[in-house]
Amino acid sequence: MKLATLKSTVSRDGELLVVSRDNKKAVKVPQIANNLREAVENWEESAPQLEAIYKKLNEGSVADSFVIDTHNLHSPMPRTFQWADGSAFIHHIKLVRKARNAPLPETLTTVPLMYQGGGDDFLAPTDDIPQIDFSHGTDFEGEVGVITGDVPMGVSAEEALKYIRLFVIINDVSLRGLIPEELKQGFGFFHGKPSTAFGPFAVTEDELGEAWREGRIHLPLEVKLNGEFFGNADAGHMHFHFGQLIAHAAKTRNLKAGCIIGSGTVSNEDMTRGSSCLAEKRMLEQIHEGEIKTPFMKVGDTIEMEMKNNKGESIFGTIKQKVVQA
Amino acid sequence: MKLATLKSTVSRDGELLVVSRDNKKAVKVPQIANNLREAVENWEESAPQLEAIYKKLNEGSVADSFVIDTHNLHSPMPRTFQWADGSAFIHHIKLVRKARNAPLPETLTTVPLMYQGGGDDFLAPTDDIPQIDFSHGTDFEGEVGVITGDVPMGVSAEEALKYIRLFVIINDVSLRGLIPEELKQGFGFFHGKPSTAFGPFAVTEDELGEAWREGRIHLPLEVKLNGEFFGNADAGHMHFHFGQLIAHAAKTRNLKAGCIIGSGTVSNEDMTRGSSCLAEKRMLEQIHEGEIKTPFMKVGDTIEMEMKNNKGESIFGTIKQKVVQA
Repeated sequence: MKLATLKSTVSRDGELLVVSRDNKKAVKVPQIANNLREAVENWEESAPQLEAIYKKLNEGSVADSFVIDTHNLHSPMPRTFQWADGSAFIHHIKLVRKARNAPLPETLTTVPLMYQGGGDDFLAPTDDIPQIDFSHGTDFEGEVGVITGDVPMGVSAEEALKYIRLFVIINDVSLRGLIPEELKQGFGFFHGKPSTAFGPFAVTEDELGEAWREGRIHLPLEVKLNGEFFGNADAGHMHFHFGQLIAHAAKTRNLKAGCIIGSGTVSNEDMTRGSSCLAEKRMLEQIHEGEIKTPFMKVGDTIEMEMKNNKGESIFGTIKQKVVQA
Repeated sequence: MKLATLKSTVSRDGELLVVSRDNKKAVKVPQIANNLREAVENWEESAPQLEAIYKKLNEGSVADSFVIDTHNLHSPMPRTFQWADGSAFIHHIKLVRKARNAPLPETLTTVPLMYQGGGDDFLAPTDDIPQIDFSHGTDFEGEVGVITGDVPMGVSAEEALKYIRLFVIINDVSLRGLIPEELKQGFGFFHGKPSTAFGPFAVTEDELGEAWREGRIHLPLEVKLNGEFFGNADAGHMHFHFGQLIAHAAKTRNLKAGCIIGSGTVSNEDMTRGSSCLAEKRMLEQIHEGEIKTPFMKVGDTIEMEMKNNKGESIFGTIKQKVVQA
């Protein structure tokens, strides 16, 4: 099934929606849960009820459904208590570390990289990206992610896969100009990773069909910059799968329902697939053409991200954001 | 006033309590807010109502008040959407970096160090600290902290002080054995900072009296290990004040109501004040006695933290935790 969140002036968590498979219609379901986090917290009870409504909605037999206006949708979870972003595409790590002259970690292929992001103020899928200063190097990062249930500390990678409740796509907005300085301090990302945006629809495993296997989503993430092709890298090329990422996050702590785990920037070695962030493209230009040609995002630039299934249907809806002066 | 949170089997956020000044009595206030985060989100409306009840409670004229059993209290916010911990005591940074042979950041005295912690699963003030493996180097870190309202991006340090709603004390549990490896990866803390605990009572500025000035709490944090004196360092020695820490956190993002900002381990150069974490004491032993004598926490060890006002009254109640086998 597909779930989404209607922006609300009453609740910071928005209102939970069940969305039709074709992304066109939705229905509010306050009788099941007030918001998506509540639904995930009580998944065993809520999921069958939500599935039943999803079935009816697809059959066209839900009386109070309405046509979706994407601008009224928030990210599926407007906020969450734990947003941990991995970096599971080794090709991406190699390129961005090269770009900032940082060494590769010794444990590159054995221990996932992961940082904790701010979960209190996510952007909606069509919200503007505020730019304080062009020198901050505004960049996008196209990712896939999962929303988990309650995960116990010390869970194995295999077992961890069972706690995935929903899948999402992500624009992990990054400020490249601020990252080298703050990583040099030794405490990880903070200013360099401002508010993140998500695709409008969070979906269950069955919506991915055979594309979901071995803990990875084997589909391309389509990325357009200013309306033009920028990348369609295959998200199946994750070095660490989502079970490994969840288990890594839960090594010394429990994860609570609604926790979002990101894949890191989707990245393929095949250059015809383009990139899912500017930093990679800039580094590839440096390597292959001797100079960086692509600037970071300017005010007015737009970024779009979408993932389609093998029938060409949009699974998560579209992230479409514009950079504006803060 | 003093606020607390009753553990609840119904809500993961617990139930909001107003607590008497002497920490002895409490009353539920669901008519004002279901939980502390809701109260902070609607502070302008909720605070005067809560203050009115606090006044009556101290006068002994609240009929449905009850005697507090500390074991029924959760941390004031059992979970939050943003938990960002600074490291504002330079003496602490110098000692722990020396302990792990890490260089001092060039911006040591000009840019605060801060990491984002997991906000989804805080420990209660009397919850056991689970130890997976003694080699993880279980340590405590005694800190003070603030809970903010909605803070706009780009706020100045001066202005930021106005967004402080409540004060807390914190045990930022740390796994020293895991920190060097993960910081070497470059993405900051994750495994080394498992679930954090807080003192039972969150208090408003007036409870601190003259001790709250220049953005700092000028009172000693009393720390006892296994019932014996371990430290009573003055929390007023913060190099960066809380306004600077909040402004740092809000440099490229909004902070949403309920955000907790920590001071980092309270630390004084005066050695008679002891320490607020084992890592410091161990490093001081190494420097002054040539060898480390104090082990990290073992199963059965207890840690207590408390802060008293100039009349000797406990402001935040006591954090009292025991290390147990996970």
